[in-house]
Amino acid sequence: MHYIQQPRAIEAKSFDIIGEIVSETRPEYRFASPLHEAIIKRVIHTTADFEWLDILWFSDDALQRLCAALSRPGVIYTDTTMALSGINKTLLATFGGECRCYISDPRVVAQAKAQGITRSMAAVDIAVNEAGEKLFVFGNAPTALFRLLEHDVAVSGVVGVPVGFVGAAESKEALTRSGLPAVAALGRKGGSNVAAAIVNAILYHLQGAR
Amino acid sequence: MHYIQQPRAIEAKSFDIIGEIVSETRPEYRFASPLHEAIIKRVIHTTADFEWLDILWFSDDALQRLCAALSRPGVIYTDTTMALSGINKTLLATFGGECRCYISDPRVVAQAKAQGITRSMAAVDIAVNEAGEKLFVFGNAPTALFRLLEHDVAVSGVVGVPVGFVGAAESKEALTRSGLPAVAALGRKGGSNVAAAIVNAILYHLQGAR
Repeated sequence: MHYIQQPRAIEAKSFDIIGEIVSETRPEYRFASPLHEAIIKRVIHTTADFEWLDILWFSDDALQRLCAALSRPGVIYTDTTMALSGINKTLLATFGGECRCYISDPRVVAQAKAQGITRSMAAVDIAVNEAGEKLFVFGNAPTALFRLLEHDVAVSGVVGVPVGFVGAAESKEALTRSGLPAVAALGRKGGSNVAAAIVNAILYHLQGAR
Repeated sequence: MHYIQQPRAIEAKSFDIIGEIVSETRPEYRFASPLHEAIIKRVIHTTADFEWLDILWFSDDALQRLCAALSRPGVIYTDTTMALSGINKTLLATFGGECRCYISDPRVVAQAKAQGITRSMAAVDIAVNEAGEKLFVFGNAPTALFRLLEHDVAVSGVVGVPVGFVGAAESKEALTRSGLPAVAALGRKGGSNVAAAIVNAILYHLQGAR
């Protein structure tokens, strides 16, 4: 069988194809900036779903704040180990950043049981009390996002793209009204893969700007 | 804020909503079996994308073979750590199974470099030479799926759902013609999250049948 075997060539060609499809099917479509374009195209790359042209919401300060936060030491807290797995932690570390997921932390398991809340919520409770600059990346758990919004805490940015049918759309709608610097998915769609793609697109942008 | 905080209640309600939407929007739609239904609904649950009603392909023997393989000791090889993260490894272990991803294995890194192939391909080369019953779960890398099909090796099942624009559709098309017991995504869509959801749906089915 003949097939392209060079990962960089595959990725470059994929982005070209995505650009061509957007031009052909949505000739009037304009990306708000090259970074918006890079993020949206990377999400389409990871989902093969062009609905992402229309459902990714950015607060006015989102990309400026996320770029600033990811280019200096800080901690990304994810709601799932899948999102943690998908984020390019090697590149993140070159900026001094790191990534944590507390969903299986024994403290989280104990607190969730004691308080009758989800482990996703208990993980947020622990994260917000840690020192240092914090970003939250949620691809799965609406309860994590709702919980974060209940805390009155300074965050450097939120990638809020929980997927699902119960609370997901509502949690993301609440995020868009929170005033936090945020990227959110409107409606039901999202996912850990989408969350990681958004973070990685920003990291690659920062890497290219070095 | 008021929101449902019980994970099992959230999941059960989500599946009810998915069923209602299918009934309303596709009243003629019929699932081939309760397990087909469980798998397709779990993929929709993880993507919020109802196109999955139409693009998931099952070989005639796929579910029988996958159920048999997952209910006894064996190894699932994934192409990404995201798929590995998403699979319920605790439940898998209760059947004696385990899950491995070799993408960052030093042998894989060295072989890929030496041979000018992708790490995904080198990971498959190592996996097929290991002893024991093997299942392959690919959500990301068409080259992994193409490589597996190049090997003439007995496998207990393949979940082949690489997402993307270069080679993904072709790799899955090749899988449907391979004669292997397989679940495949037709077209561009797929993903590590989808791959994990398919495996988990089968594991939950087996757990319920105990």
